[in-house]
Amino acid sequence: MSEKVVAVVSGGLDSTVLVYHLRDLGLDVSMISFDYGQRHRKELEHAKKTASRFAIEHEIIDLTNVTNLISRSVLTDHSRDVPDGHYAENTMRQTVVPNRNAIMLNIAAGWAITLGATSIATAIHAGDHYIYPDCRPVFQEKLSEMLKVANEGFIDKGFSVRAPFVNSTKGDIVKIGDTLGVEWPETWSCYKGGDIHCGSCGTCFERREAFAEAGVEDPTPYLATPHFDDPR
Amino acid sequence: MSEKVVAVVSGGLDSTVLVYHLRDLGLDVSMISFDYGQRHRKELEHAKKTASRFAIEHEIIDLTNVTNLISRSVLTDHSRDVPDGHYAENTMRQTVVPNRNAIMLNIAAGWAITLGATSIATAIHAGDHYIYPDCRPVFQEKLSEMLKVANEGFIDKGFSVRAPFVNSTKGDIVKIGDTLGVEWPETWSCYKGGDIHCGSCGTCFERREAFAEAGVEDPTPYLATPHFDDPR
Repeated sequence: MSEKVVAVVSGGLDSTVLVYHLRDLGLDVSMISFDYGQRHRKELEHAKKTASRFAIEHEIIDLTNVTNLISRSVLTDHSRDVPDGHYAENTMRQTVVPNRNAIMLNIAAGWAITLGATSIATAIHAGDHYIYPDCRPVFQEKLSEMLKVANEGFIDKGFSVRAPFVNSTKGDIVKIGDTLGVEWPETWSCYKGGDIHCGSCGTCFERREAFAEAGVEDPTPYLATPHFDDPR
Repeated sequence: MSEKVVAVVSGGLDSTVLVYHLRDLGLDVSMISFDYGQRHRKELEHAKKTASRFAIEHEIIDLTNVTNLISRSVLTDHSRDVPDGHYAENTMRQTVVPNRNAIMLNIAAGWAITLGATSIATAIHAGDHYIYPDCRPVFQEKLSEMLKVANEGFIDKGFSVRAPFVNSTKGDIVKIGDTLGVEWPETWSCYKGGDIHCGSCGTCFERREAFAEAGVEDPTPYLATPHFDDPR
């Protein structure tokens, strides 16, 4: 029987490629997604499409009460505008929910241990290192150490935090996804959560740049495609 | 202005003494409690009494959906019987919810960072080390390291995990509480959650033993007080 892994999947580009990658490694994947009142709840519907394509066990956990408590983020405060243009430090800081990745990954780990899985997996990547401290290699390392001591005696087969893209750019992830035949229309990036990707918010910019960097044709329909050098 | 701390408080004996202890250190305490569908939800009402006595900001977070997902614990599975008598390893194992402390403390840390607090506090103590790996000093240490790297740049004044009782017995905690004038009737231990403490479940046994060990008169009304050497 193949090893079980619980993957944290938002339905965005990176975490969807992660699911394909883990399956490619021969792992038995379970998916967990979190509803934290994000504007781009639409991505959760996209996570469901990937789960359903591969008949993967998929849990969506409502964390709205937790993020309402701790959040100062524009992602969950609908009264504030999403900053347009490429992420610069200041606008990215507005999208930080303190300790969010640690909370989601610790819940994923609890479920993983109950399932008898030997790892959790996250799509944190190099492009997020600059501003999100909980996307850096040292976070992966310290979380892994904490989980081992917190659950000693209950993880007899060992336990690890898989972050295969932690040193990859988003362009690298698109290249990997292209090789694995990822269904790009089943991924969602736009923070604005409209009918189609807006093309001009920070994550749309990043998505467009990633395909360009990878040299992979971007099949995403965008509402607008302002020039990369001309963020609004 | 005094330093802020977020304390995880169940309404049990240990965490109530923790609140008195933190206030005694001159800290500005906020309290967070978790409803995880425990049989002894009654303890949450007791946490409210302590919050209200000191006009402390108090948040109760519903984590029922999370623990329903990850739990194999008799504490939250009402179809199973609570084991009576003193906790032995096997019966205590039945009350383990994988990674529970890490999940609660990570949520507390997220809120603490939003509040500008410089620490979180937990009432983990030596009596729980034997079976609960997430009550040991090394867990406190690894959690603290993880929180620092996960939130680098957002905790400019530093951040720590306070676990003042991590090397104390429950008897020591009762002694400290006695000195601080803790209102014992505003604490709840019994896992069975009846009108008064049953006196015979594992936590009632521990409570009774702690007062005996401390040499402090136990003001708790119990339904039954079987001899300590005669666990049922």
